[in-house]
Amino acid sequence: MAKINGTDNWSKKDIILQKATSLFKLKGYHGASMRHLAGEVGVEAASLYNHIDSKASLLKEICFSVAGDFTSHLDKLEKGDLSQVAKVESVIRFHTRMMVGKFEAMYVSLRDWKNLEEPWLKMYGSQRREYEQRLTAIIEEGIRRGELREVNADIAVLTILSAVRGIESWHRHPHHTDAAELENTLVEILTMGLKK
Amino acid sequence: MAKINGTDNWSKKDIILQKATSLFKLKGYHGASMRHLAGEVGVEAASLYNHIDSKASLLKEICFSVAGDFTSHLDKLEKGDLSQVAKVESVIRFHTRMMVGKFEAMYVSLRDWKNLEEPWLKMYGSQRREYEQRLTAIIEEGIRRGELREVNADIAVLTILSAVRGIESWHRHPHHTDAAELENTLVEILTMGLKK
Repeated sequence: MAKINGTDNWSKKDIILQKATSLFKLKGYHGASMRHLAGEVGVEAASLYNHIDSKASLLKEICFSVAGDFTSHLDKLEKGDLSQVAKVESVIRFHTRMMVGKFEAMYVSLRDWKNLEEPWLKMYGSQRREYEQRLTAIIEEGIRRGELREVNADIAVLTILSAVRGIESWHRHPHHTDAAELENTLVEILTMGLKK
Repeated sequence: MAKINGTDNWSKKDIILQKATSLFKLKGYHGASMRHLAGEVGVEAASLYNHIDSKASLLKEICFSVAGDFTSHLDKLEKGDLSQVAKVESVIRFHTRMMVGKFEAMYVSLRDWKNLEEPWLKMYGSQRREYEQRLTAIIEEGIRRGELREVNADIAVLTILSAVRGIESWHRHPHHTDAAELENTLVEILTMGLKK
């Protein structure tokens, strides 16, 4: 019985997180109220706190969940034995899929991570920097191995991350191309742009 | 004498526009007050209106000034006889220089154009779409002529515009590479990514 209650609590929390993500996306973190969130979940505002600590902790969960997905993907890539070009391609595909499939959480984490409270803000900032540095290392290793053109690796990473972030405006286009073509085109332009 | 006064008025208006651009960048359009702007210019709030119509008209001037720069550049390109690849390169260089040299105005126009009042909002939106369509036409013509890879031209334009927009985060890096290397790297990755 205790176990079943435990499961129920988790599932309620998942619903709250999902509704919070949509609400933060729509209203911005500062514009979203816990009263409004409670309404979306269908409970009294006070009873939200049976499941979560605070509005700040919801933002933390959204941002670190997305960051965790990226880190896990990169962990696997680094352990694998793909060529550096194939690693770059895999990074572009993963970012594109996150921007397409988890768009609301991506949008919130990209726009609102600066509203994280400490110590999360500092942790998140350094996790971001570390992630970028690991991508830079992949590019640099690709240049060293003669797989990639001799470009400035920092700017290459900036170009990749900015290009995939632009999928934000793809979502706003009413008649956009399908997600597979989006992904393949981004991969083609960016990998051919980097490949020697 | 009238002419000199006229000149004085223009110059005061330029100062107001410049200070408004910095203030909108810093505070956001909605967060910036005319009182604060008057303080920056060094005049009483009421006397600002001797030179400008409204806060809304300042945003209009900033956005349409930037848009006008892009349109003029594209007009010249379309009239010239560069190859399609060279046109794409020129577009990337121009966007990069605008993002580096006119960063505050670019930032404000990219973030705040949606706060334009009608009829400017509608005009600006269609000017933006028209600009993107003209870029798409350059890519499509490049594909037709066999200069460019057969990619989805809309996504190619999205990739270019997103990549140059990412220069926003280059500005935030304290030890960023110099602007010429930034420009050359973006040109290299994106044109080599598109070139056949």
